[in-house]
Amino acid sequence: MNIYLECFSCFFKQIVETAKIAGASPETTRELLNELGKSIPSISMDITPTEVSPYVYGLIERYTGNTDIYKTLKKKSNQLALELYPNLEIDTAKSANPLLTSLRLAVAGNVIDYGVPSSFDIEKEIEECFHKEFTIFDFELLTTDIKKGKNILYILDNAGEIVFDMIFIKELLKLKKEIVCAVREKPIINDVTLEDAAYIGLDKIVKVISSGSPIPGTIPKKCSDEFQQYYHNADIVISKGQGNYETLSNEKRPIYFIFKAKCQVVARHVGCNLGDIILMRKN
Amino acid sequence: MNIYLECFSCFFKQIVETAKIAGASPETTRELLNELGKSIPSISMDITPTEVSPYVYGLIERYTGNTDIYKTLKKKSNQLALELYPNLEIDTAKSANPLLTSLRLAVAGNVIDYGVPSSFDIEKEIEECFHKEFTIFDFELLTTDIKKGKNILYILDNAGEIVFDMIFIKELLKLKKEIVCAVREKPIINDVTLEDAAYIGLDKIVKVISSGSPIPGTIPKKCSDEFQQYYHNADIVISKGQGNYETLSNEKRPIYFIFKAKCQVVARHVGCNLGDIILMRKN
Repeated sequence: MNIYLECFSCFFKQIVETAKIAGASPETTRELLNELGKSIPSISMDITPTEVSPYVYGLIERYTGNTDIYKTLKKKSNQLALELYPNLEIDTAKSANPLLTSLRLAVAGNVIDYGVPSSFDIEKEIEECFHKEFTIFDFELLTTDIKKGKNILYILDNAGEIVFDMIFIKELLKLKKEIVCAVREKPIINDVTLEDAAYIGLDKIVKVISSGSPIPGTIPKKCSDEFQQYYHNADIVISKGQGNYETLSNEKRPIYFIFKAKCQVVARHVGCNLGDIILMRKN
Repeated sequence: MNIYLECFSCFFKQIVETAKIAGASPETTRELLNELGKSIPSISMDITPTEVSPYVYGLIERYTGNTDIYKTLKKKSNQLALELYPNLEIDTAKSANPLLTSLRLAVAGNVIDYGVPSSFDIEKEIEECFHKEFTIFDFELLTTDIKKGKNILYILDNAGEIVFDMIFIKELLKLKKEIVCAVREKPIINDVTLEDAAYIGLDKIVKVISSGSPIPGTIPKKCSDEFQQYYHNADIVISKGQGNYETLSNEKRPIYFIFKAKCQVVARHVGCNLGDIILMRKN
């Protein structure tokens, strides 16, 4: 999915919100806005919005000297989710369909996203995701594919959210699946890295690799050889979040996308409304 | 109230939304975004956000050749409000406090605003404004001032909204006040001009003047001599909408501001929440 004209305003919003988190002064933030403004003509319409992120966040890093702006917030998100984890695992086990319950939790977790300008209330979100209808709900296709296949590549998204993914992943492990999880190469926004996966203990239950991706999304041909091997050989690929959707939605191989549509541009591309929850198999 | 860092993203949003209304192609809109981007460094932080509008909308006019982009939407807004008008006037007359009821309608009308990216439902808005508490409610001060004073300068805001203002103005006329209404010098966004005032028949019941303002707000010292005379001599000045608030909030003379806080930046300046309704005397 390529950049929409609407994305440009969002880049300016991201600069202001992220500069604030990075502790930049108003004067520095203003300089950042000027720099971004001057670069607008050179941003191609043939890339995904996600691919602009390293430039936007890189600019803030360069001006503030802060190379892991979301470190504290990521840790907080992971801790908050870990606190909720034991009860959510019990609720899942007690539910009529633990696989579906854990999938709903994985969607709920997707709201923890500092890259999309908005606030969130995770407990309210969990509650909502349990009662809300999926707008696109390819759950039957997914369960059929799970029955047939063995190897799953699970492309992770944000800190905090991965704790919820872990509940879903544990359900998939109960079905004797072999799962590899992919994270980003280095810190970008609140996306997960190997460090986050280790922090929540995900690496104790499945293999976790870096996709090699420096953007908050996944462009397979630009990823590491190891990632590409898993990507092409996996029976099932599960992609979490908008950044991965933006970059993987035009791929040739079948992919299951799980996310909440948090921006109008993505919602329009999907053909859903803002706030809708999606489990969609593409291709 | 000066520009906030958050305003810059809004300028880009306005370009995209307005270019669409003006019928610009995606390619032209992209060129507009590039032009705006390049101009960012030259936008001073010492002006009000409203003062950037002539540049933003002028850019769109220049690229599309359309010098009254909102003409059709303004006419629609006026027509829609005129359809609601007879019943609203009856409701007002029947109410316990017609002045307050008509004031609430004037606030409800303020939601008709194409300059603030959002959609609106006017009937829902009217309903809401009848039940919602004002966050700042200087109604007692206003009624005291009305008792004491005779001359009112009423600075209008948007098409459609002025029909609701007319109900409030008629209540003020019943109190034997002398009212002069001020509109913008020429079309800018959906702000009212002499043409709109004449279309709804406002000029039949009060004197309507152009403020001489080319921006969607009012900077008295840059307005016409006629406006400045009324402005300085009026016993009461009533200012509708955010654009007028942004430009008049630091003025020395007492002014009554009536509006709904439709953007975070204005809400922060006022010290209220987004969506709050305000009747505030400043100075």
